[in-house]
Amino acid sequence: MTNVERLEVPHATRAESCSGRELARWIGEARDLVKRSQRRLAAIMAADVVGYSRLMEIDEVGTLAAMKARHRRVLRPLVAAYRGRVFKLTGDCMFVEFASAVEAIVCALDIQAQMADANGGQADHRVIRLRIGINVGDVMVEGRDLYGDGVNIAARLETLAEPGSVCISAAVQDQIARRLPLTFEDLGEKVLKNIARPVRVYRVAAKLADDPLSAEPPRAWALA
Amino acid sequence: MTNVERLEVPHATRAESCSGRELARWIGEARDLVKRSQRRLAAIMAADVVGYSRLMEIDEVGTLAAMKARHRRVLRPLVAAYRGRVFKLTGDCMFVEFASAVEAIVCALDIQAQMADANGGQADHRVIRLRIGINVGDVMVEGRDLYGDGVNIAARLETLAEPGSVCISAAVQDQIARRLPLTFEDLGEKVLKNIARPVRVYRVAAKLADDPLSAEPPRAWALA
Repeated sequence: MTNVERLEVPHATRAESCSGRELARWIGEARDLVKRSQRRLAAIMAADVVGYSRLMEIDEVGTLAAMKARHRRVLRPLVAAYRGRVFKLTGDCMFVEFASAVEAIVCALDIQAQMADANGGQADHRVIRLRIGINVGDVMVEGRDLYGDGVNIAARLETLAEPGSVCISAAVQDQIARRLPLTFEDLGEKVLKNIARPVRVYRVAAKLADDPLSAEPPRAWALA
Repeated sequence: MTNVERLEVPHATRAESCSGRELARWIGEARDLVKRSQRRLAAIMAADVVGYSRLMEIDEVGTLAAMKARHRRVLRPLVAAYRGRVFKLTGDCMFVEFASAVEAIVCALDIQAQMADANGGQADHRVIRLRIGINVGDVMVEGRDLYGDGVNIAARLETLAEPGSVCISAAVQDQIARRLPLTFEDLGEKVLKNIARPVRVYRVAAKLADDPLSAEPPRAWALA
């Protein structure tokens, strides 16, 4: 974590007992750092193709063509419909920024539903399924790219998702549970690779709550 | 809460047991709602003048002039420095949107420090002190205005703050504790007026942590 990622107190300051004067000095330094860097709150979606290497091994040309078709017919139109912005795209992995956690979640469910539809009747080696992870974070902005724990946690959540499903952090669940009639499976606190703190993870269940309010896990609410 | 604020399942759908088909139907409706409405994640700051009515009663003209001067010399420049946007402004109360929770918090501490400086040597009835509340929420956007629980919670947090201090929700603490060497006083879960769920509230202490990592309340971290 760089000094820009965490607005560190200079070493000399930290060693002293910090008074109001120290705070004032730190505020001045933090103000300068804010000027030089840019951050924003965003909902970050990481989506990854399940068994990409295996699919490529079976039929490289066919898999690439199928992936391109899915991007064109499912992913790109849906990301646009929910005002998302792809900021990183590799062969099998896509990172999308959304201004709203609500829009990110509905987009993810929409993508999974339309991917399942598109898979209907396909041969096994033509079935393309995604794992999706979503996090809300105060991320660092550099040009069109986003950095920081907020992005890394989304990538880790994606690896925890079952094929075809969506995993979210407590920070996302806290923003959407009030507003969407979804049910969530609490997977508990997970230690994620290269993330210092355990993250509480929820799986978005593919069923609606009969009553959105009673469907919210009371424990998660207590932390809101 | 309107249908736009919470993406409700239509009544008929909710009464049925919800299958994947119901989910698909709801996704379609939610997609339409997303098109018609706009949301975004934002850090919302509510700032209020302590004892405004009393100050106005003592000296209306003088108080108004002093408030204007503070806006011009302290509030406006600092809000601009931290890329904030004032979206509501009444006599004694100001609502500001920030793209980043980190920037909102440092701005709030900067405002409180500069307000204290400006109060130095002033007569009692010229002392202007603010309460500040900050929340992170997925808020509704209508033109230049913002609506929803995310804004209301910020307003309620402000009423809990001591004069000259800053209160934040757990959603804010979760985003900033990793990144800023601040100490937080856990005020516990509070039932806020017109907010359905209790909100965990923290007071930002006016001292720096010697070690930012050890200063983070372990309980709050466990929920991250």
